[in-house]
Amino acid sequence: MNVDHINAVCRATKGILSSHFGLEVEPKTPKAGVHAIPSNDVSVVLGVNGEVNGQIVCAVDEQTAKNIVGVMMGGMTILDLDDMSWSAIQEFGNWIAGSTATELSKVNCLIDVTPPIVNDGRSSFRSSEQFITVPLASTLGQIDVHISLHKKAS
Amino acid sequence: MNVDHINAVCRATKGILSSHFGLEVEPKTPKAGVHAIPSNDVSVVLGVNGEVNGQIVCAVDEQTAKNIVGVMMGGMTILDLDDMSWSAIQEFGNWIAGSTATELSKVNCLIDVTPPIVNDGRSSFRSSEQFITVPLASTLGQIDVHISLHKKAS
Repeated sequence: MNVDHINAVCRATKGILSSHFGLEVEPKTPKAGVHAIPSNDVSVVLGVNGEVNGQIVCAVDEQTAKNIVGVMMGGMTILDLDDMSWSAIQEFGNWIAGSTATELSKVNCLIDVTPPIVNDGRSSFRSSEQFITVPLASTLGQIDVHISLHKKAS
Repeated sequence: MNVDHINAVCRATKGILSSHFGLEVEPKTPKAGVHAIPSNDVSVVLGVNGEVNGQIVCAVDEQTAKNIVGVMMGGMTILDLDDMSWSAIQEFGNWIAGSTATELSKVNCLIDVTPPIVNDGRSSFRSSEQFITVPLASTLGQIDVHISLHKKAS
């Protein structure tokens, strides 16, 4: 995986958290992994096609998801994730998708990102392709950004 | 959603099950749903970009996953899903991805499909976009094909 692409995805997520949520975000040490990544309680899955192909998965625990939705709804306290909350989390994914496409285009990598799909419940995502995980610490909680973007075998 | 696209995705999956597995497949009554679709025990998620965008999720129970892997490994009995099994399930997703792109191109819909990612564990996929679910019954077990393909809002 190209480190410029990983940095672009991180900039995209950090940019959204800073511009839309007013958050200071501290990236922690990235990890490389294969085989299985945890979905945590809630994860947003973005599919990427273009000059690189793969997935970006943003995984958070339930409280962090509630905190994110709360800020998106103008500072409400969210007790349960209802349909409106899931829709907000999907919209959060849309913001990251749009920002990711922009940031990758700045490093000359043209991609399309699918509409986000949200995974609810603890499970694992498995792939034989390598994932790089960048944990982002914020006051709303930790957001694990798992990135698997590879050039098609030609 | 365009019924031609749904039929194309179903033809793709049925085609793989027939040509690669020698299976007779019987499509059961499709259902339309929103909000949440079950991941069953094992699901393969394909992201679609192009003239339509969204996801195709193929969900099976654990025994069906083992049966599929067993046939792919030349008729072995699979007791546990190990790394090689997960890799086989991902390859099963790759076959469906390739076939889906071909079948959709035949109805003048050009798309790219992401490499598959496999979800392991019971969870739900949530989206505010509509999903059409086509359950395919086969002797290996039931494969639920969930299709959410929409034109981008312009």
